Amino acid sequence: MGAATRYVELPPFKMRHGATLAAPRIAYETWGQLSPSGDNVVLIVTGLSPGSHASSSPEDPTSGWWEEMVGPGQAIDTERFHVVCVNSLGSCHGSTGPASVDPVTGRRYGVTFPVLTVEDIAKAAHQALQALGYAGLRAIVGPSLGGMTALAYALQFPEEVRSLVTISSAPRATPFAIALRSLQREMIRGDPEWQDGGYADGAGPVGGMRLARKLGLITYRSAREWKERFGRERSAVRGREGVFGPEFEIEAYLEMHAQKFVGSFDANCYLYLSRAMDLFDVAEHGGSVEAGLGRIKAERTLVVGVETDILFPLEQQQEIADVLKRHGRSVRFEALASIQGHDSFLVDMDRFQPVVSSFLADA
Amino acid sequence: MGAATRYVELPPFKMRHGATLAAPRIAYETWGQLSPSGDNVVLIVTGLSPGSHASSSPEDPTSGWWEEMVGPGQAIDTERFHVVCVNSLGSCHGSTGPASVDPVTGRRYGVTFPVLTVEDIAKAAHQALQALGYAGLRAIVGPSLGGMTALAYALQFPEEVRSLVTISSAPRATPFAIALRSLQREMIRGDPEWQDGGYADGAGPVGGMRLARKLGLITYRSAREWKERFGRERSAVRGREGVFGPEFEIEAYLEMHAQKFVGSFDANCYLYLSRAMDLFDVAEHGGSVEAGLGRIKAERTLVVGVETDILFPLEQQQEIADVLKRHGRSVRFEALASIQGHDSFLVDMDRFQPVVSSFLADA
Repeated sequence: MGAATRYVELPPFKMRHGATLAAPRIAYETWGQLSPSGDNVVLIVTGLSPGSHASSSPEDPTSGWWEEMVGPGQAIDTERFHVVCVNSLGSCHGSTGPASVDPVTGRRYGVTFPVLTVEDIAKAAHQALQALGYAGLRAIVGPSLGGMTALAYALQFPEEVRSLVTISSAPRATPFAIALRSLQREMIRGDPEWQDGGYADGAGPVGGMRLARKLGLITYRSAREWKERFGRERSAVRGREGVFGPEFEIEAYLEMHAQKFVGSFDANCYLYLSRAMDLFDVAEHGGSVEAGLGRIKAERTLVVGVETDILFPLEQQQEIADVLKRHGRSVRFEALASIQGHDSFLVDMDRFQPVVSSFLADA
Repeated sequence: MGAATRYVELPPFKMRHGATLAAPRIAYETWGQLSPSGDNVVLIVTGLSPGSHASSSPEDPTSGWWEEMVGPGQAIDTERFHVVCVNSLGSCHGSTGPASVDPVTGRRYGVTFPVLTVEDIAKAAHQALQALGYAGLRAIVGPSLGGMTALAYALQFPEEVRSLVTISSAPRATPFAIALRSLQREMIRGDPEWQDGGYADGAGPVGGMRLARKLGLITYRSAREWKERFGRERSAVRGREGVFGPEFEIEAYLEMHAQKFVGSFDANCYLYLSRAMDLFDVAEHGGSVEAGLGRIKAERTLVVGVETDILFPLEQQQEIADVLKRHGRSVRFEALASIQGHDSFLVDMDRFQPVVSSFLADA
C-alpha cells in the first residue's frame, strides 16, 4: 500500500450469504477537492487485481493502474471531481480479505473467509463512503469486475448514483468465462504449495498462480492483437531450454508477465474474487436481468465494450444498454474497435479517454 | 489398439530436424476394397488425440472417432473408396512416439524423442502407404492437426494427391493458439509427477493432463454453444466441496470429460504433438505461405472452417482457399455456421456430412 492509502474501519459487516465479518476495513485513496456541498464525488471500483492507487499524487508519485485516465484535466478530472478509489472487500491491497487476520481467531482467514459476492464488495464500498460522510455519488465508474460492482452498487443504492459508467463488464457471467476462471482456480488449488489454503504468510502456490496469470493474460487480450504484435517471431532464448522452452516471443512475453504478477497478489484473495465474478447475476435481484437492471435509477449511464473482448463480450454490454433503455433510462452505448481485448481499458487510451471524458463532462 | 489395427515397419526414418528413428512403425486401419487399379485410396490423417480407429468394421465393431463420417454410404464412403486412417508418428496409439521403446537404448524414448514436426508426421504416413504398395491418393482428408498434416503431405508429395480436404486447420499456428498450447504443456511439465518426462509406464502427470484437457475443451468449443447449452445452470453436486467445488454445470461437465481423457493419452506424446502444431509453418516451404501453398498440385481442394472456431479461426481457412485460388487451383471453400467451435467436425454432422460427401462424390 502506498503513502496515499487511507483506511476506514467498518462496524460488523453482514455478508450476502449470511456470515458476518467482525471488524472489516476498506482501503481507499482520493484525489481532488470535495466541493462545499459534497456533490462532486466520483467513485472508482476496480477489476480483480488492482488496489486503490488508481493514479499518482504529490503524496504518492508512483504511477497508478489507471494513470492516464485519472488526474488533473484527464477523463476522470481531479480538478473538477473528488475522486475516490476503493480496494475491493476480499482483496489484499489494504482492505479486509482472506489474507487478513480474523480478529476472532487471531489467524489469517484463508479459506475460512465467507463466500464473497459482488454485492458484498459494493456494499462495503458504500459503507466506507458513508463512514467518510459522503452523501451520494456524482458518478460511479467500474471496469471489468468493477463494472459488476458498479451495477451492484447502483442496484442496491439506487438513490445514490446519478451517473453510472460500466466498462467491459457483464450483468452476469457466461459459462465460458466461468469455465476459464474455474480452471484458473483449479491451477492454484492443485498446486501442493496451496496447502488447502493454509500456506504461510509470504509463501503460497507460486506455480499455480503463474499458470493462472498466463491464462488470464491469454484471455484478457485478443488473438488479433498478438497476431499483429508477435506473429511467429522467435524468442531470444529460443532453444536454450529444449523444444518445450520459450521458442516463440509470445511464450517469453507470457513468462515475463507471469513472473511480475506472482508475489504481488495473494492466492486465496484471487480465488475469492474470481468466484465472486462467477456468482454475480443481476437476475437475482427481481428474478430476471430485466427486473434487476430495472432497479437502477441513475439519470445517465455510459456502457462501454470492446469488439475483441472474449471474456466480457460486446453482446453483454449491449444487453446492459438495451435493458436500461427499455426501462426509459438515458444510455450511451459505445462499442470500441480496440484490438487489446478485455484489457483495452488499461491500454487503448486513444479510444477510452474521449468516451469517458465527454460523458463525465456533462455529469 | 483395436482388433482391426495393422502395423507397417519402416526403415530408419530421418526427421526434419536431423535425428533418425532407427525402426519406427506406423499403426493404421482400413475400410473398403482397394480397386484393381489401386486408384481409390482415401487417406485420413487425424487431430492430436485420435488413433487410427476412425470407424467400426466387422473386425472391430466399437465406434470410431469419426463413426458418422466414415462407412458404407457415408460421406467418406467405404463402399466406393479404400479408406486408410493412420495413427500419427509421435502418437501413442500404435505408432512410434515418445511412449515407445527406443530400440537403441531398450528404454522408452520419453523426452529423448527427437523434435517432431508436422512434415515428419506426413512423411511417415507417406512411407507407410508406400510400404503397403499404394501408388497415390484419390484424396487426403484431415481435420485440425490432420489438416496441417494433409497440407504437409500435399506439399511434400505433390504428384500423389488428387483431391485435398482440410478441415478447421491452418497454414501456420497463430500466436494465440501457440500461447494456449504452451500453457497446456506448462501445466503438464509443471506437475511433479511428470518427473522431467521420466515417469514410469502407467504413471505420469495426471493432474497436469487434467488441467490441459480442460483448457483444450474450453478452447475447442465455443462461448455461444455453452451459453445455449449450460447458461447458468447449477451442478447437482453444488456446495458439496465448498465454494470452489463444481457450483455450475459447466464446471461439472469439464471435470467429467477431463477424467475420461486422463489415462487414455501419454503425456509426453501430447507434448510433442502439441509442439509440432506450433512449429508448423507452410512458409518454411519456399519463404512465404503463398510460395508454400503454391507447391500443392491437387486437382481439387475442399477447405472447410467454422465461424465459432477460436483456435483455427475461419480467416485461416479463408487464407488457404484464397492462396490456392490465386495459384489457379480449383477450390471449394465452406464457412460453416456450427456453434461447436473447433470440435464441430466431430459433432455437427448435419453440416459436415453433406459438404464432405458432395465433394468426394466428384472425386
